Amino acid sequence: MHNKGLVVQKYGGSSVANVERIQKVAQRVVETRKKGYHLVVVVSALGDTTDELITLANKINTNPSEREMDMLLSTGEQISVALLAMAIHKLGIEAISFTGAQVGIITDTSHTRARIIKINTDKIKAELKKDKVVIVAGFQGVTLNQDITTLGRGGSDLTAVALAKELGADSCEIYTDVEGIYTTDPRIEPKAKKINAITYDEMLEMASLGAQVMQARSIEVAKKFNVPLHVRSSFSTSCGTMIIKEVDKMEDVVVSGITLNKNEAKITLCGVSDKPGIAVRLFKHLAEAEVSVDMIVQNVSHTRLTDISFTIAKSDCAKASKITKKVARDIAAGEVLLNEDIARVSIVGVGMKSHHGVAAKMFGIMAANKINIEMISTSDISISCIIKKKFAEIAVRKLHAEFGLSL
Amino acid sequence: MHNKGLVVQKYGGSSVANVERIQKVAQRVVETRKKGYHLVVVVSALGDTTDELITLANKINTNPSEREMDMLLSTGEQISVALLAMAIHKLGIEAISFTGAQVGIITDTSHTRARIIKINTDKIKAELKKDKVVIVAGFQGVTLNQDITTLGRGGSDLTAVALAKELGADSCEIYTDVEGIYTTDPRIEPKAKKINAITYDEMLEMASLGAQVMQARSIEVAKKFNVPLHVRSSFSTSCGTMIIKEVDKMEDVVVSGITLNKNEAKITLCGVSDKPGIAVRLFKHLAEAEVSVDMIVQNVSHTRLTDISFTIAKSDCAKASKITKKVARDIAAGEVLLNEDIARVSIVGVGMKSHHGVAAKMFGIMAANKINIEMISTSDISISCIIKKKFAEIAVRKLHAEFGLSL
Repeated sequence: MHNKGLVVQKYGGSSVANVERIQKVAQRVVETRKKGYHLVVVVSALGDTTDELITLANKINTNPSEREMDMLLSTGEQISVALLAMAIHKLGIEAISFTGAQVGIITDTSHTRARIIKINTDKIKAELKKDKVVIVAGFQGVTLNQDITTLGRGGSDLTAVALAKELGADSCEIYTDVEGIYTTDPRIEPKAKKINAITYDEMLEMASLGAQVMQARSIEVAKKFNVPLHVRSSFSTSCGTMIIKEVDKMEDVVVSGITLNKNEAKITLCGVSDKPGIAVRLFKHLAEAEVSVDMIVQNVSHTRLTDISFTIAKSDCAKASKITKKVARDIAAGEVLLNEDIARVSIVGVGMKSHHGVAAKMFGIMAANKINIEMISTSDISISCIIKKKFAEIAVRKLHAEFGLSL
Repeated sequence: MHNKGLVVQKYGGSSVANVERIQKVAQRVVETRKKGYHLVVVVSALGDTTDELITLANKINTNPSEREMDMLLSTGEQISVALLAMAIHKLGIEAISFTGAQVGIITDTSHTRARIIKINTDKIKAELKKDKVVIVAGFQGVTLNQDITTLGRGGSDLTAVALAKELGADSCEIYTDVEGIYTTDPRIEPKAKKINAITYDEMLEMASLGAQVMQARSIEVAKKFNVPLHVRSSFSTSCGTMIIKEVDKMEDVVVSGITLNKNEAKITLCGVSDKPGIAVRLFKHLAEAEVSVDMIVQNVSHTRLTDISFTIAKSDCAKASKITKKVARDIAAGEVLLNEDIARVSIVGVGMKSHHGVAAKMFGIMAANKINIEMISTSDISISCIIKKKFAEIAVRKLHAEFGLSL
C-alpha cells in the first residue's frame, strides 16, 4: 500500500459499547488503512465498564488503594484493544494490540491521575513498519517500577494526543458520539451549530466551562505541541470540528460558543472583618481539603464587615460547607449560606480580545431578559455569569441568538 | 510478627465469584497472616468471567488470534487480584497485587497454553520482606518480548505450584469449592469419601481420567519438584487432601479412587488389511489435526482383515470422523463407525503395583453385573474400561463397593 502518512484515531467508550459498535469501528479503521494510511488506534473501555468497575471496588472498600484501583480500571481498555484487534483481523487486516505498559507509556507515580513522562515509540514504529494497525489501550501507563497507572477521566484523549505528538502523526482524530463541538448544547438550543474550526484556547475554555466532549488536559498538550485535533462522530462520515492553533474566520466572529454548567454551588461567608489575611485563611483550608474553588467574589465593604462568596463543584458541597463554618467560628464571622440553585452561563471566543463592549453586551442581554447576575468572572477569551438555575436555558438561548450564533 | 514460614494459597474462580466470597477469602488470608505466616496468594478470574470473555470474543471472531485471546483473558485475573488486595486492605493488613507480567512469570510464546520458562522472584521477595501479602494473578505470564500469555485451562494451579517451588514455600494450598479429592464423584456414589492423602501419580491418573479438581500439568510440576499440595475447601476450615510423593497407608489399600469420563467417543475403522503401516498412517493424520487419541485397540485378525478402534474427546468427533473416513477411502478399508454412547470407568491406585489380580477382579465385577467391556487400557497404577454409557453409574458404584471404598 502506498503510504499516505500516519493517522492516530481515538474511539471513546460509547463508540465501542457493544459487539456491533466494535465491528463498526473496525470497519472504519480498515477503510482508513485501505486508503493507504498507517494507523495507531487508541481505545477506551467498553461503554460503562469503568464506572461498573468503580462500583464493584467501592462495594469491597469505600476507600480503595489508588494503586489497586489503577490495576483494576486498566483492565477495561485492555479488553477493548483485544476485541478490536480480533474485529480487524476478521476483516482481513493485520493488527496488534498493546497495553499502555507494553507500549512504553511511562508516567509518574500519581495513581488515578498520572502524568505522562515519556513514551517509548520503538515498539509501535516496528509494528507500523510491518504494515500492522497498532491498537493501544487508552487511559493507562506504567511507572518506571512497572506499576500500572491511569491518566484520570478522559485520559484516553491524552493517550491519543501524546502518541500523535511523539509519532509525528499527520492527524489525530477523536471519535465520539456527537458530530463535533457545537456553539452550545443542542438539547438546550436546537439552533446550535457544529463549529467547523475552533482554537485550542477556545476549546480549553469550553471544556473547563462545561462542554464535555474532550478532556481539558489533552487539549493543553495538543496546544503545547501544536497537534491538530479532529473531533468527529464514530457513527457518521461527515467532518467534525478541527481544533487548531489559529482559525481564519471568514467573518468577524466575536463569540464562538455558549456553555452552561449546572454542577456548581455557591457558598457565602457573611460578616467578615475586612482585614487582610482572612480570605487567604479560608481558601488555604479549602485547598488542603482538595476542594477546587472556582469563582470568588468579595463585596466592596461599606461598613467594616464584608461578604465572601465562592463557587465549588456540587460534589464538594458538604466538605466545603463544613470547612467554611469552622473558619467562620474561628474568625467570629457571621452565617454561612449555601446556594445550590445556581447555574453558570459563559460566552467563549478569541474574538473578544479585539472587541470592546462584549461584556457590556452580555450584561445588557441578561438585563433585557430580567435575569439577575449574581457573580461575574472573566478571562481573556470568556465571560461567565452565575445566575438562578431557572433562567439557565433562556439565558443560553438569548445569548446564542444575540451573539449571532443562531443564524 | 514471628515468621512461621511461607504459604502459597491459590483460590479458584468459584472462591472469588462475588463480593461476599472475595471478602471471605480476604478473611482467610488475614487469619493465616495473623498466625505469623508470610503469604503469596494466587487468584483465578471471578466466577465465570473467563467463559464470558471467550463468548464475547467468539461473537467478534470465531477464530480469534491466540495472542489477542491471551490479552483479553488475562484481564479476568487482573480484576481479581486488585479486588482481593482492596478487601485485605479493608481488614487492616498490607497487601499488593501483581500481574503475571509484573511478577516476572516468563513463558514461551505458545499463546493460550504457554509453558513457564522461569520466574523472577525478586519482586515478590522484596514485598514479602516488607511484611506485605503478595497477590499474584493466576493463569498468566509474559514472553521475553513482553507479550501477555496464558497457561491453559486450570493454569492458576500451575502458577501456584511454580511459585511455591521457586520461593521454597513451606506449603501450597489449593482452595476450591469441594472438600478435597474423593474416592469417586459423590454425586454418583453418596458413600464416596474424602481421601486424606494421595500420591502425585495417583492424582495425575485421576486428573487425566476425569477428576477435575486440579490441572494435570500443575500436578506434574508439583511431582517433579516435590511440592506438597493441600487441596481444600475455601468454604470450610476442615482439612482437605494432601497430594504428596508417598503415602504411608495404615491398611493395604489397592484402589484409591474410581473415575468416570463420559466425554469420549469411540471410532472404529472396519475391514483394514492387516499389514504394517496402516495404523501409523491413520494416527499420523489425526495427530497432525491436533486430535488427541486416547485408547487404541486393534482386534486380533482371524482373516486378513482387522478392525481398529480408538477413543477421542467428543469435541473432536467431527474432525476425527472426517479424517478416518478419508483414510478408509485411501486404503480401501470398510466402513467407519462412530459411537458416542460410551463411558470410561477407571480404577486408580499405587497399590496395584504390588497386587496381582486387580484387573481380573475388576473384569469379574463387570461380568457379575452383566456389563459388557468394549475396550480395556491399563497403566502402572490404573485400569480403564470402555462400557455402554447406561452402565456408567452402576459400574462406578459396584467398583467403589467391591474395592472396599464404601466402608
